[in-house]
Amino acid sequence: MTKDKTKVRTILDAVKAAGRDSLTAPEGKLICDAYGIAVPQEAVAASAAEAQKLAAAMGFPVVMKIVSPDILHKTEAGGVLVGVKSAEEAAKGFDTIIANARKYKADAQIIGVQVQQMLKGGQEVIIGAVTDNSFGKLVAFGLGGVLVEVLKDITFRLAPATREDALSMLDGIQAAEMLKGVRGSDPVDREALAKLIVGVSELVSDFPEISEMDLNPVFATKDSAIAADVRIVVDFAPKTPRYRPPEAEVLASMKRIMSPASVAVIGASDENGKIGNSVMKNLINGGYKGNIYPIHPKSPEIMGYKAYKSVKDVPGEIDTAVFAIPAKFVAAALIECGEKKIAGAVLIPSGYAETGEHALQEELVTIGRKYNIRLMGPNIYGFYYTPANLCATFCTAYDVKGSAALSSQSGGIGMAIIGFSRSAKMGVSAIVGLGNKSDIDEDDLLIFFEQDPNTTVIAQHCEDLKDGRAFAEVARRVSKKKPVIMLKAGRTSAGAKAASSHTGALAGNDKIYEDVLNQIGVIRARSLRDLLDFARGVPVLPTPKGENVVIITGAGGSGVLLSDACVDNNLTLMPMPADLDAAFRKFIPPFGAAGNPVDITGGEPPQTYKNTVLLGLSDDRIHSLILGYWHTIVTPPMVFARIIVEARDEMRAKGIEKPIVVSLAGDVEVEEAAQYLYEHGIPAYAYSTEIPVAVLGAKYKWARGAGLIK
Amino acid sequence: MTKDKTKVRTILDAVKAAGRDSLTAPEGKLICDAYGIAVPQEAVAASAAEAQKLAAAMGFPVVMKIVSPDILHKTEAGGVLVGVKSAEEAAKGFDTIIANARKYKADAQIIGVQVQQMLKGGQEVIIGAVTDNSFGKLVAFGLGGVLVEVLKDITFRLAPATREDALSMLDGIQAAEMLKGVRGSDPVDREALAKLIVGVSELVSDFPEISEMDLNPVFATKDSAIAADVRIVVDFAPKTPRYRPPEAEVLASMKRIMSPASVAVIGASDENGKIGNSVMKNLINGGYKGNIYPIHPKSPEIMGYKAYKSVKDVPGEIDTAVFAIPAKFVAAALIECGEKKIAGAVLIPSGYAETGEHALQEELVTIGRKYNIRLMGPNIYGFYYTPANLCATFCTAYDVKGSAALSSQSGGIGMAIIGFSRSAKMGVSAIVGLGNKSDIDEDDLLIFFEQDPNTTVIAQHCEDLKDGRAFAEVARRVSKKKPVIMLKAGRTSAGAKAASSHTGALAGNDKIYEDVLNQIGVIRARSLRDLLDFARGVPVLPTPKGENVVIITGAGGSGVLLSDACVDNNLTLMPMPADLDAAFRKFIPPFGAAGNPVDITGGEPPQTYKNTVLLGLSDDRIHSLILGYWHTIVTPPMVFARIIVEARDEMRAKGIEKPIVVSLAGDVEVEEAAQYLYEHGIPAYAYSTEIPVAVLGAKYKWARGAGLIK
Repeated sequence: MTKDKTKVRTILDAVKAAGRDSLTAPEGKLICDAYGIAVPQEAVAASAAEAQKLAAAMGFPVVMKIVSPDILHKTEAGGVLVGVKSAEEAAKGFDTIIANARKYKADAQIIGVQVQQMLKGGQEVIIGAVTDNSFGKLVAFGLGGVLVEVLKDITFRLAPATREDALSMLDGIQAAEMLKGVRGSDPVDREALAKLIVGVSELVSDFPEISEMDLNPVFATKDSAIAADVRIVVDFAPKTPRYRPPEAEVLASMKRIMSPASVAVIGASDENGKIGNSVMKNLINGGYKGNIYPIHPKSPEIMGYKAYKSVKDVPGEIDTAVFAIPAKFVAAALIECGEKKIAGAVLIPSGYAETGEHALQEELVTIGRKYNIRLMGPNIYGFYYTPANLCATFCTAYDVKGSAALSSQSGGIGMAIIGFSRSAKMGVSAIVGLGNKSDIDEDDLLIFFEQDPNTTVIAQHCEDLKDGRAFAEVARRVSKKKPVIMLKAGRTSAGAKAASSHTGALAGNDKIYEDVLNQIGVIRARSLRDLLDFARGVPVLPTPKGENVVIITGAGGSGVLLSDACVDNNLTLMPMPADLDAAFRKFIPPFGAAGNPVDITGGEPPQTYKNTVLLGLSDDRIHSLILGYWHTIVTPPMVFARIIVEARDEMRAKGIEKPIVVSLAGDVEVEEAAQYLYEHGIPAYAYSTEIPVAVLGAKYKWARGAGLIK
Repeated sequence: MTKDKTKVRTILDAVKAAGRDSLTAPEGKLICDAYGIAVPQEAVAASAAEAQKLAAAMGFPVVMKIVSPDILHKTEAGGVLVGVKSAEEAAKGFDTIIANARKYKADAQIIGVQVQQMLKGGQEVIIGAVTDNSFGKLVAFGLGGVLVEVLKDITFRLAPATREDALSMLDGIQAAEMLKGVRGSDPVDREALAKLIVGVSELVSDFPEISEMDLNPVFATKDSAIAADVRIVVDFAPKTPRYRPPEAEVLASMKRIMSPASVAVIGASDENGKIGNSVMKNLINGGYKGNIYPIHPKSPEIMGYKAYKSVKDVPGEIDTAVFAIPAKFVAAALIECGEKKIAGAVLIPSGYAETGEHALQEELVTIGRKYNIRLMGPNIYGFYYTPANLCATFCTAYDVKGSAALSSQSGGIGMAIIGFSRSAKMGVSAIVGLGNKSDIDEDDLLIFFEQDPNTTVIAQHCEDLKDGRAFAEVARRVSKKKPVIMLKAGRTSAGAKAASSHTGALAGNDKIYEDVLNQIGVIRARSLRDLLDFARGVPVLPTPKGENVVIITGAGGSGVLLSDACVDNNLTLMPMPADLDAAFRKFIPPFGAAGNPVDITGGEPPQTYKNTVLLGLSDDRIHSLILGYWHTIVTPPMVFARIIVEARDEMRAKGIEKPIVVSLAGDVEVEEAAQYLYEHGIPAYAYSTEIPVAVLGAKYKWARGAGLIK
């Protein structure tokens, strides 16, 4: 793409010099020209005679519009004439527009009347750009017209957008079919539209002072896409960029914090019920093997460990300091930590921004920056990192090791994560509280977990992203390697309102989160249970090699519900090839249904489940299996569970691995079977047809985003 | 509404006599006139001169259209001219249309050219009617235009529709806002549109031979709604109506079947593992107090009960016969049951329609009809009716009594219901397997449970409604008294395909189910877990008296997610009045947030929960409470649970009852607290913010549908 940055800079400088906050239509057109954004032929007439001449040269019909820096809403001012069909009409139109403009705003500076080639036919669309508080520049796309406005059918991507991003936007609106040609109309020129989208996204990225931009309408026909009108709004007040340490530095600090050789507990206590006592107990009982240094103003020893008055008195190096002292004492102790070159402070105390004490929190941030000490919290439960047997928290010790790294912005949600994990025996590598996120936030965690060999999935609860742009940059990379799952709370307007009262976060535009998370390959959980179930199930599933899913079920009724769930979760039920259909039929009763779902019927012995599952695993055309089990005397739950694990193991020995998820319908014994299956790497759920399919769907969503499925 | 049925009958008779399957435009207009459905002025011209004269009398512009019984697609035939502006154009138009029609179909019978007042402006909408296989006549409403077609934004109601139904359709499309006037356009005349919808719905109901009807487009302006074009398709082949016994008879039979004084077990057996043995065991061990009559060709006694060769040998009356013999022996035994005047046969055996043996099943239906014996199944697990301690099934005995009546079309889903109910300690009045639904179906169960004092909620899993119309008639009435919840499987096209292979049911149009269930007040469950959770939670909640919901939470993070869930479930977070805000603030720390959610903050003692909950219950403006609990040492889970029950009991003693649901975030101890709360009438859920709100949402949906909330 040709980009004449100098030209744009010149125009913007002039606008800035004039103290304006928006561009005239001719300025907008010039900027579009400089970035290869197609606009109609046009010129500005200073007189009726000139208007007549210009229009005749362009060919009729033309559109005529007032050009005035003082008139932004041209239609309202009577400053627009559409469908001007002849030279005479053009001359008359000039006079009408000028008269209307004078009437609308007597003192408006009038530059002239723009005469413009009138675009017709095709599909009207809107391409625009906005500046989001968290994500920065975003490009937007939607159809034109009132109905689309009513339906809010618009889609966003981070700017700059690639050609692929842009093409995905054309498919990303509800009304996408309109662009493909309906009722005999032509399909639009997708490449031409993508070029416009990319152009706008690069323009606003190159010139951050462009705060808003609209191409509205754009006429998209089968061989072109031309913006009929351009609106550009500018904001020359520079934003203070958020401070971000270099990634290598982030990683070095995070490694020391998460997996420390020594931990200091500031405010350690022998007294039951004190937070500093709970932290000490958890460190000790959790099995942490590094050095533990209690810090206490008076005691020489706490819980059998030599205590120090200050971290500065500790002889060796300290990586992590856990704070269990009241807010007002934190700053002084934090300075000492800085002087001791401790990597991170885990700030359990509350009483900061969440209670309106913003200055107190800012003070800590300043100290942290000065001494290069990273802050977790304040207002958190602490964190767990199970590979180091580290429970740096006042909650109970956690013991089920595994590879899911979870984090939460809220303490309550953190407790729910701990309870669910323990109850569902979910293996966890880390649980981290982020609280007020004065410093360490989701992207810092991503940078650590990306390289952490003990973590295979990252699941985060968050209410706002303080720096969505930084998160997106990291998450886009990390999600190619490990599934990243996010529960974004405050996604509805009522929800956003509550978020705002809780953390001071601004109400987020949920559609922007939706589209950006999708763009960067992050799996969005719709509910707390989804977040937990995805974190538990996704990492144990192998990555599917293709889109073909087959359901094998003993209960026809489950088959129907599992099929529903496949559609809900964007999974493809493979149309069953005739030979494979015949092969399945060999194993099932004559009245069973092959096809997909394969209905083996309810009364079948274990071998029928095994035979069909082995066939499903061995045939190359099938990429994933969903099993529907029906509890019978002939095949009791644990018999079924064991035989499925056997079948999986037999194929694994031959080098074949495919995702299998299981729905179990039956009496309470199926709960034990579900747990057995999960512990053997097969996510299985009692009394639910939707959760297993949603978990498989999440795995697919990740694998597609990471480019692992063609 | 004026209805000239004679006029319509005359026209339809003529169409039938002519062997046609659709009506001409003038016929359509006459029929509309007869039902007060507004159409434009129009007349048919036989010559160019006449066309000229008619058009001039109506005023320009006019639309001209070919009138020919042989040309249905008029536009395709070049038989339509729009915007004819003068008398000369009208004359010329006549000749053009006739010429085009001749060219399109040389032998077409041409009656003339219709000249019609041309409607302009306003909003184009479509009103139509279809005949659904299950629900019969339905009226449809949507906006006009291609975009709406692409978005499939159309809504259905059972015909005939009331004015209220019709008005609800205007709000029932995604693009509803378009009708209210956007960007300065006028709102449409809602009453005029409703009148058209009601008219169409009554017309197709009064004349079932009208199989399809389209008013397309209808021009809706601020003071009128006129159908510009009418299309009516007829089908004179009468459908055989499904046989339905009178309701009183249904109820009498169902009472005997569900709560029998005596039960015969046909195929009773002493042999472990036989179905006839399992049924006997369950009857006995389940604690059934009525007479049990084993039927066996040889044994004189089975499991200590005197056995008989035939039901006819049994001395007393028998209400219910449970069949546990192979399919091929059923017919003969069923005849004997008929002769014995047994009320119902519970047909456990499989090997009927589900395996392609349709004739075998038809035979049973014929016998059942002849002897007036109702058939449950075949191909079922049987049923449970706990108030009678009756386990007429081969599954394990069920023992948790309660007031939820569940049914399933599929055996697998039935087993999931049993397992979940036992595991979650859900009190159940009945679990019924409907299987192939050869006779007894969902509406028969509704008729029984409607009057059953032991049942307060009815939850049904179904894949198809064999007679949606009959179901709707009963469900509409029952849902006013007791919540009716339905999990309609096969709701997506892939799902519907599987349904079809399982039960031979036709692929259902899910949008029709969605709209009709809504119209008749049935709560639709989106998933199996929703069905189960609603059945468990909805009946223990008191009915809310108004829409104002307040969240009280110890965890701000839960508050945000609970707020999200309120929006998802169509619940209204009450804007907090200043005096009430101040009243809440008295109980919470200064940095807590009042408003709604009321954030009492995490470290609070039990009394803070109790005080705020008591305030929430006692203030008249608040109608329901959602509680978010955060596990702390200060207020452990069971302490919280007990104090909430105490608070509820205190207010109940004062005559105040409001729905309360609870979300618990914490370590595994919260599971015990959740169970305690549920057992004390407060639905509570660990690790979930969405389920409690969905359960409350289901209760609200029911209460609104039943007219219990203004």
